[in-house]
Amino acid sequence: MAGRTNTPGQSVSQRLLAILGCFDVAHPALSLTEVARRSGLPVSTARRLIGELHGWGGLERLDDGRYRIGMRLWTIGSLAPQQRGLREAALPHMHDLFQATQENIQLTVPEGDQALCIEKISSDKAVPTQTHIGGRLPLHATGVGKAILAFSGKELLASLAEEGLARLTPYTITQPGRLTAALAEVRRTGLAYSHEEMTLGAVSVAAPILGLDGTVRAALGIVAHSRTALDRLAPAVRTAALGIARSIG
Amino acid sequence: MAGRTNTPGQSVSQRLLAILGCFDVAHPALSLTEVARRSGLPVSTARRLIGELHGWGGLERLDDGRYRIGMRLWTIGSLAPQQRGLREAALPHMHDLFQATQENIQLTVPEGDQALCIEKISSDKAVPTQTHIGGRLPLHATGVGKAILAFSGKELLASLAEEGLARLTPYTITQPGRLTAALAEVRRTGLAYSHEEMTLGAVSVAAPILGLDGTVRAALGIVAHSRTALDRLAPAVRTAALGIARSIG
Repeated sequence: MAGRTNTPGQSVSQRLLAILGCFDVAHPALSLTEVARRSGLPVSTARRLIGELHGWGGLERLDDGRYRIGMRLWTIGSLAPQQRGLREAALPHMHDLFQATQENIQLTVPEGDQALCIEKISSDKAVPTQTHIGGRLPLHATGVGKAILAFSGKELLASLAEEGLARLTPYTITQPGRLTAALAEVRRTGLAYSHEEMTLGAVSVAAPILGLDGTVRAALGIVAHSRTALDRLAPAVRTAALGIARSIG
Repeated sequence: MAGRTNTPGQSVSQRLLAILGCFDVAHPALSLTEVARRSGLPVSTARRLIGELHGWGGLERLDDGRYRIGMRLWTIGSLAPQQRGLREAALPHMHDLFQATQENIQLTVPEGDQALCIEKISSDKAVPTQTHIGGRLPLHATGVGKAILAFSGKELLASLAEEGLARLTPYTITQPGRLTAALAEVRRTGLAYSHEEMTLGAVSVAAPILGLDGTVRAALGIVAHSRTALDRLAPAVRTAALGIARSIG
């Protein structure tokens, strides 16, 4: 009886949500077969539910037959409250920072044991990154992640350490003791660095955006070529992050 | 048998989507009772489906017991393709325009018989508007709307005229003949105006963003106090709109 239940309502809506959950930054377009595989649903069920989502405007069909998230879900998602105020307060500061540096500017918020990118400004000249709006970044290996982790409860670091700190490049900090020391320095200076710890060739500097009660609301970071002198960018990032914190009050 | 069906799967997923559809810019937070009323579902059904959406992260519960769209739907919605490229191309131009004018800057796309706002930059000093990201604007009464309407098929204007052009202020153009003439002028000049036709005290100037094939992809507009000399702003709006069109290619 696995996968079946006497309350078909519950089961069907969970299947529908499972289909939406198949799509992410790494998988923005999926075929019916891929949706069925990723959701664990029979192809016939996936086909019917995709059809309903498509009819409602939640999915769009591409010319090659694959599906993408549609305008209707974008519109509904844009109603999510936290992002709204924070983004609107942050964007002017992010553009100032971009104009001054011409580097990748990222705004991220804590989400579970990762950092979620909610806004990004970039240009063709900036170093390529793996970051997209709606994408997630590891806390231990990125500037924005460390800025969040340093101002989060100790339990978060402990749980990350227990899961194991994944080695993403030869420079990733994978020893909890070294990470703890680095985070103390972040708290002392208000600045967090990543020296090719996430991506070879890219470095970053970030600053936390703290609420009035001292909790970390977000982190603002710059990602640049590894040849960049981050010391030159750090005061600008810190200034912009403080400006955003003041705007959100 | 109205409202019931022999294919409970179809029915349940449509009910779940109906619950999501209750939320919009004018109704970003709703109680269980309000969701039931707006969706036409029995309270018990609404309660169960809201519970599922909440457990999945699609809805968040506020302290007063109402619900709002949650982070998970924001993340999934951010995968919608059109908005992504257009927004990223447009934002730098929008910020240039904002820095030069300090007025409300709006980016909208055609959606059915309305204009959907997908990005907005504003400040405390700018005139208050009714526009929010994810919100919709009438085509016949706004600068961005007329910029879209002027470059859409004649069928769209005909269907709007048939529905009736709603009078939103004493200055709204409600006669199809006058609107047709105004749209011809928009096509000739590449600029669309609204003179307190949407909101008393606010005027706007907008320009279409056309694809290489001549179809209208979006419209960029400024909304300002009615005392503003729009002629001074018009070349800047047009320039920025052409810059965005070039960026998206």
